[in-house]
Amino acid sequence: MNEMEKEMVVALDAMGGDFAPMEPVKGAVDAVNEMQVCVKLIGQEDRIRKELEQYTYPQDRIEIVHAEEIIGTDESPTMAIRRKKNSSMVVGMQMVKNGEADAFVSAGSTGALLTGSLLIVGRLPGVERPVLGTCLPTKKGFTFLVDSGANVDCKAKYLEQFGKMGSVYVENVFGVKNPSVALVNIGAEKEKGDTLTKEAYELLEASDLHFTGNIEPRNIPFGEADVVVCDGFVGNTILKFAEGLSKTIIDVIKTEITKGWYQIPAAMLLTPFRNVKKYFDADEVGGAPFIGLKALVVKAHGSSNAKAFKNAIRQCVLFKQADIVGKIQDKL
Amino acid sequence: MNEMEKEMVVALDAMGGDFAPMEPVKGAVDAVNEMQVCVKLIGQEDRIRKELEQYTYPQDRIEIVHAEEIIGTDESPTMAIRRKKNSSMVVGMQMVKNGEADAFVSAGSTGALLTGSLLIVGRLPGVERPVLGTCLPTKKGFTFLVDSGANVDCKAKYLEQFGKMGSVYVENVFGVKNPSVALVNIGAEKEKGDTLTKEAYELLEASDLHFTGNIEPRNIPFGEADVVVCDGFVGNTILKFAEGLSKTIIDVIKTEITKGWYQIPAAMLLTPFRNVKKYFDADEVGGAPFIGLKALVVKAHGSSNAKAFKNAIRQCVLFKQADIVGKIQDKL
Repeated sequence: MNEMEKEMVVALDAMGGDFAPMEPVKGAVDAVNEMQVCVKLIGQEDRIRKELEQYTYPQDRIEIVHAEEIIGTDESPTMAIRRKKNSSMVVGMQMVKNGEADAFVSAGSTGALLTGSLLIVGRLPGVERPVLGTCLPTKKGFTFLVDSGANVDCKAKYLEQFGKMGSVYVENVFGVKNPSVALVNIGAEKEKGDTLTKEAYELLEASDLHFTGNIEPRNIPFGEADVVVCDGFVGNTILKFAEGLSKTIIDVIKTEITKGWYQIPAAMLLTPFRNVKKYFDADEVGGAPFIGLKALVVKAHGSSNAKAFKNAIRQCVLFKQADIVGKIQDKL
Repeated sequence: MNEMEKEMVVALDAMGGDFAPMEPVKGAVDAVNEMQVCVKLIGQEDRIRKELEQYTYPQDRIEIVHAEEIIGTDESPTMAIRRKKNSSMVVGMQMVKNGEADAFVSAGSTGALLTGSLLIVGRLPGVERPVLGTCLPTKKGFTFLVDSGANVDCKAKYLEQFGKMGSVYVENVFGVKNPSVALVNIGAEKEKGDTLTKEAYELLEASDLHFTGNIEPRNIPFGEADVVVCDGFVGNTILKFAEGLSKTIIDVIKTEITKGWYQIPAAMLLTPFRNVKKYFDADEVGGAPFIGLKALVVKAHGSSNAKAFKNAIRQCVLFKQADIVGKIQDKL
């Protein structure tokens, strides 16, 4: 039994994302230099090796696993997973399934990753639908949005489980004690909403969660709850709309501030706007965990940099250390 | 037959909104001074008269209709409409029903206004569900969001009608020729989304609308479609989340810009931030029309000022002039 087998092992898709293999490889190097973890870089060996050669790191903590194919973001998820058996994504998930890795991180196609996770890694017994959780920046830090896009056409029971899985994750991976859980709804009162939210309210209220009731979407950015629960259509809408709206508002403000008689030199704005960007920086968290599978799978953003990959790996380490799988099974 | 009977008459709830009766009254005065319209101010006569006394306007164009009661925003909509027969809201809607007014504007309780509109004013034959339309500011101007909160648990057929009613409204009231209509969805491709959006896509595609397919929420703020269609839960989520997120981003930017070594004096920011606010200014449009009723009802924002009320009245005038009721019936 060598060193690698005793330690936590994360399989990392070295071919996924806009800056692959450069950024995934650098993220892996940074991770093994900072944490007690081994990383298996999955993908085209020659390209990965070329990147790796630039860095210094404990050699026994990074291993390359060759996979020739790459799944594109424009491919049909189910077809791609079924046909590209030799892709970095399928090979990585197979390693998790076979116990050769404890977790898998990829910045590749979201659809293929979610589909592959269900088909290859598999659901935990008792979990109706694994959930994608995303950290949404707020005034107070962030709120954990479950489901942020994995499941449409949900039942109330799923939403209850999203709340439970989200609560366990936030408490153990992000260290928030007894996290507050709220239901995304278009009114604050219990009787508001559609059929789904009314039913989900009852289940969440009766659960052992620290449930604080409905949260109106206008209050989400103020950070009024640690975990916010909704179906994947609503969650993905919030997530994507936030992206577009932030960009628009920042553009308008930049234009206004640098024009007219009161104009402020653009150079003076560089630092403040860099700080604003940092404030809303997804890389600090490093990806969206797909929770409720037999092992952790993390979807890193397509534009992830090395820091994002490193932080995604950190989530995997904390996930394993805290035995989230066991805790979720206890909770459900 | 006096002058008032021949002209367009708008009933305005003088007691609705945060600044009633001051702002509704001033909005009515500005409207009759600018447009060919008569306004009936509904509410407590003595309070309205006191406000009116300050202004100069054609006396025959404003009439006070006394109504003693006020419906609060915290009351159960159905109960309030049923019990407060003498409220400014119920009296105003009864006048529309009886033909004493052509349209009704209120900044009072949204729930009560929607419920009352359905119970008192009534649906147009052929309309499955009247729809609330809201102008969402975008980089290019605005996009018309239907449904922005009137209907949850929708069927695909409703969404198709939302698209048709929204298209007629935007073309005739806001003057957008052959408006583009898109379906809010969590993916751009036709096969994406939940059961509702997949079915609605088929109906919208087969319609005579200028349908441009799915729009991902991140692209809404860029102004890629004139009309965006979704169910009222998703629409209200977008609307309210936009409110909270804009406020948060602007606060963070203000803080960043005015701190640190690179600090910019706050006074230099007054004009630009006033312009940014104007850019996202709901008062320019003046409220959300509730479309698909036998007459137009406009929900003005709770914080509406005189300009917002005046612009809401303008929507009523254009609605009547363009015979939107007839055009909607032709379209459905």
